[in-house]
Amino acid sequence: MDELKQWVNEIHLELSTRADKGRVADYIPQLAKVSSDKFGIAVAPVNGPVITAGDADESFSIQSISKLFTLTLALGQIGDRLWERVDREPSGNAFNSIVQLEQEQGKPRNPFVNAGAIAVTDVILGGHRPKEAIGEILRFVRFLANDDAINIDRLVAESEQAHGDRNMALAHFMRSFGVVRHPAAEVLGVYFHQCAIAMTCRQLAQSGLFLANNGRNPATGFNVVSPRRARRINALMMTCGHYDGAGDFAFRVGLPGKSGVGGGILAIVPNKAVIAVWSPGLDASGNSLLGTAALEMLAQRTGWSVFG
Amino acid sequence: MDELKQWVNEIHLELSTRADKGRVADYIPQLAKVSSDKFGIAVAPVNGPVITAGDADESFSIQSISKLFTLTLALGQIGDRLWERVDREPSGNAFNSIVQLEQEQGKPRNPFVNAGAIAVTDVILGGHRPKEAIGEILRFVRFLANDDAINIDRLVAESEQAHGDRNMALAHFMRSFGVVRHPAAEVLGVYFHQCAIAMTCRQLAQSGLFLANNGRNPATGFNVVSPRRARRINALMMTCGHYDGAGDFAFRVGLPGKSGVGGGILAIVPNKAVIAVWSPGLDASGNSLLGTAALEMLAQRTGWSVFG
Amino acid sequence: MDELKQWVNEIHLELSTRADKGRVADYIPQLAKVSSDKFGIAVAPVNGPVITAGDADESFSIQSISKLFTLTLALGQIGDRLWERVDREPSGNAFNSIVQLEQEQGKPRNPFVNAGAIAVTDVILGGHRPKEAIGEILRFVRFLANDDAINIDRLVAESEQAHGDRNMALAHFMRSFGVVRHPAAEVLGVYFHQCAIAMTCRQLAQSGLFLANNGRNPATGFNVVSPRRARRINALMMTCGHYDGAGDFAFRVGLPGKSGVGGGILAIVPNKAVIAVWSPGLDASGNSLLGTAALEMLAQRTGWSVFG
Amino acid sequence: MDELKQWVNEIHLELSTRADKGRVADYIPQLAKVSSDKFGIAVAPVNGPVITAGDADESFSIQSISKLFTLTLALGQIGDRLWERVDREPSGNAFNSIVQLEQEQGKPRNPFVNAGAIAVTDVILGGHRPKEAIGEILRFVRFLANDDAINIDRLVAESEQAHGDRNMALAHFMRSFGVVRHPAAEVLGVYFHQCAIAMTCRQLAQSGLFLANNGRNPATGFNVVSPRRARRINALMMTCGHYDGAGDFAFRVGLPGKSGVGGGILAIVPNKAVIAVWSPGLDASGNSLLGTAALEMLAQRTGWSVFG
Repeated sequence: MDELKQWVNEIHLELSTRADKGRVADYIPQLAKVSSDKFGIAVAPVNGPVITAGDADESFSIQSISKLFTLTLALGQIGDRLWERVDREPSGNAFNSIVQLEQEQGKPRNPFVNAGAIAVTDVILGGHRPKEAIGEILRFVRFLANDDAINIDRLVAESEQAHGDRNMALAHFMRSFGVVRHPAAEVLGVYFHQCAIAMTCRQLAQSGLFLANNGRNPATGFNVVSPRRARRINALMMTCGHYDGAGDFAFRVGLPGKSGVGGGILAIVPNKAVIAVWSPGLDASGNSLLGTAALEMLAQRTGWSVFG
Repeated sequence: MDELKQWVNEIHLELSTRADKGRVADYIPQLAKVSSDKFGIAVAPVNGPVITAGDADESFSIQSISKLFTLTLALGQIGDRLWERVDREPSGNAFNSIVQLEQEQGKPRNPFVNAGAIAVTDVILGGHRPKEAIGEILRFVRFLANDDAINIDRLVAESEQAHGDRNMALAHFMRSFGVVRHPAAEVLGVYFHQCAIAMTCRQLAQSGLFLANNGRNPATGFNVVSPRRARRINALMMTCGHYDGAGDFAFRVGLPGKSGVGGGILAIVPNKAVIAVWSPGLDASGNSLLGTAALEMLAQRTGWSVFG
Repeated sequence: MDELKQWVNEIHLELSTRADKGRVADYIPQLAKVSSDKFGIAVAPVNGPVITAGDADESFSIQSISKLFTLTLALGQIGDRLWERVDREPSGNAFNSIVQLEQEQGKPRNPFVNAGAIAVTDVILGGHRPKEAIGEILRFVRFLANDDAINIDRLVAESEQAHGDRNMALAHFMRSFGVVRHPAAEVLGVYFHQCAIAMTCRQLAQSGLFLANNGRNPATGFNVVSPRRARRINALMMTCGHYDGAGDFAFRVGLPGKSGVGGGILAIVPNKAVIAVWSPGLDASGNSLLGTAALEMLAQRTGWSVFG
Repeated sequence: MDELKQWVNEIHLELSTRADKGRVADYIPQLAKVSSDKFGIAVAPVNGPVITAGDADESFSIQSISKLFTLTLALGQIGDRLWERVDREPSGNAFNSIVQLEQEQGKPRNPFVNAGAIAVTDVILGGHRPKEAIGEILRFVRFLANDDAINIDRLVAESEQAHGDRNMALAHFMRSFGVVRHPAAEVLGVYFHQCAIAMTCRQLAQSGLFLANNGRNPATGFNVVSPRRARRINALMMTCGHYDGAGDFAFRVGLPGKSGVGGGILAIVPNKAVIAVWSPGLDASGNSLLGTAALEMLAQRTGWSVFG
């Protein structure tokens, strides 16, 4: 454990000095405001205290990492019927591409592209009012992380909404195929709020523990999902969790992970730990540049890759 | 080990009685001749004797599984410069799609789609005559499997050649972008022969041992690749090894694997074993139907999924 | 003139007895209600009285033919600056395809695909309230046809709105590129109303006279557009006026024309006449089956093809 | 006629001084050698002597204009059965795109995209040896132009062959769908030679006279095609004759035309004349920049647009 702590500190220190930190997302003003110097790491072992370095206790916008939580929630609600609405294959196009959606008759490729996540949120909405669905998602994330201090950044949610035409197009498009069933504005009202959830690296790492521990959160003892479902969610993260950079992430890091344009990445080390990193500068595929590098270095030193 | 042998036998027995065995590939006559009743399983533990069931010692056409061997060979020859010629991302389209190739200026998505494998073969050709390159590939496969009895099925190779227009189109197309550099007919002459290599499940399982054992073949003691490269090849198999069914294979089986339209699948269990299955009937994505089912059941019983 | 009248009657009679009348559009309930037996023809010579046959004085939903009127109106408002917002090339895809729109960064291929027509309507909206823009379009159509009895079918407009997700997707998508500038719901509010304009074949034929007469309506004496602009609008109808069937229409009929899914087609015979046909049954490309056949026969007998 | 001669000279003079002459095609060395200063115009009225200006009697590579001749030849051989092999719709993609070909199962969009022209050449080959087919095409062009001095530029043909991977890819691709039936190398052997036919503006203008004169060559009195077929070929030139710039050419010039990357354009004025222009500099769509401008100016002054 002391060795792990040392590695985390070394990696944080080494990467902090890098000149090229990537490019902070600027498609919404609220994200563009974040300093590219922020950099946090948290590692939550399945059987030990959380190890942190840097800005690991500062909140940031989890953005697409929220798709992992809503996927888990929707699977809990309707089980494998979810796969009638969304597929499980990696997407060969950019994360918000509408082309592939048309080729496949409105069925999104996987729950981690925007279209797929919107379809999942439509499932969670399930006849409720948007406000209730937002509340349910937030409560679920607090339950997973075992931390009631987690909240939604309303300014980010509003900013998303004001720049949400591409996602509105996706929602209307899927509605025309019957894949999205609630009014597009309601579904996106929920979706923009889930993306605006703010969490720290520490909270994120804790929230993913059930995936590293066969479905059971070791901190709380709650069985969140079955061992089989935990494996399957990890598999989806491996093949689809990094937009059009999933192949590269698997190649370099070798762990299931889910990234967000806020600069966070959540990675699962089955049976061992959860790693959460945050650095707002992104690479060309929209994934955290330093965050990916940190995970690559940590996986290398610990030998945690699932691939041997 | 006795438990593993029992599981393999049970799974073979249970699946043998299934009515739906999928559809045997018929795009070349030589493949269409194979009986859909053939079904073999071989498991090669990293530290123990091979376990088999059914037709595990009957040769079949390995087809696209050969792409795994040529990838390894080409990486040995030019290392990471290979990634200038071919990408590492899963493909959202069918395995022989030319559309994506055009969108990406002739650079194939990964070494396991046909275009990517042809580009890899072009690297191996490397100025030699086709005959020499074919010989080199065959010798490498024999070396990996530690079995000099492995050969090429000339009838299959000729049949491929006679129905090779789609692959010829891919080769010429990449040549127009400078990604393929030798004459198209020469590159495909080699490619069709590598696809026509005939192996048994036992031989296949043995040939993959280096990937399950950090790059070193435990049967021969030879270091084939570095531990890091072994991990990376496994990662590529996980994200790209099953055409447009890679996401589903990871979801259901949870192991790196490479399939071929001859009905074979090679799956790696890091640090533990290699599994080779063969059943010629294919599913809609072109992967062995019973073979995938067998791997899913075996991974379930053994707990061998890399995802927890 | 008597000869022309006879031809029109003969063609109407001959086609009326055809068993295969095509398939009435059913994507909105209000269109699906129309009988497939309806069939009208009107020919308006530039220098003589209108000739009609069949249901030429019964109103029908002009649908996409309205795109011709809004294009003319928008060109009158902002001139050639319109071409910064929409291109002038035929589309190789179906009329409501979003794929091509993504490939071309949100700039529609031409003003007659749905996306292009929505962009044109956004121009006409020009800061006004939707109600005012709808009024302006209606007044313009009445002016062109020289008939104040023309109206909008409110039930059709509401039905379009209720099934408008695909068009909403297009509008939001173009908004994300800045090609559409008003709120999507406002633009489509106008668009759905323009498509719901109801006209008779006689009114349609009269409304197109300015295009057959170098920009000047011979019935009213008003110069609607310059001779050059009239030619150019005719050219656009020739290359883009029939969705993915423009090539076939030019090949068979040889006249500039614009069709609508309501079953109407407006065709221009430069310097000679305007032809309007209506038969609700559509062919596979979404163009009136009998209407196209009638135009082909009439162009053949009159020698009116522009191609010799 | 004197007026026409004056206009032709004025336009030639005015455009000759333009600084921006476009970019000479450089995809094969033989084309890249041609001076961008070359500029010729020839107008062949259906009932009068040919009028010329500039380099109208200098030979150049007709390239894709040859597709017009092979289309006419193939229609003469198998009639409307040709449309089972190739469609008649404008293409929304670049002239040598393979994407659309895949979406449409190997059937080319029209006879003027490369794929379509290759399929037409496959028809002409019709079991003969390539040499014979080349001879037949050349004799047909000489017959059309009424000039036995027309020849093939062997250096250009060889240069095309040496850089023909993209077209080889198209041929193999169509062969995989059964649309092309002869060996790809044979079909392209013919195709590269037809593209390498060298003609002057005068010869080109004469060769198109049958299309301006209801199928009958007024110079020789031969009926080349029926009036209906002449109209239809003109229609195809209008909607598909300028690659992805067909809409713009119709919009600006208003005449059926076929361009080639050698810088030539052949335009038909039904019942009046044929215009041939040549200037090697191309615009972004691959059509002659000055040539298109000359046609636009001439159509404007003469009022020859078919659109009014």
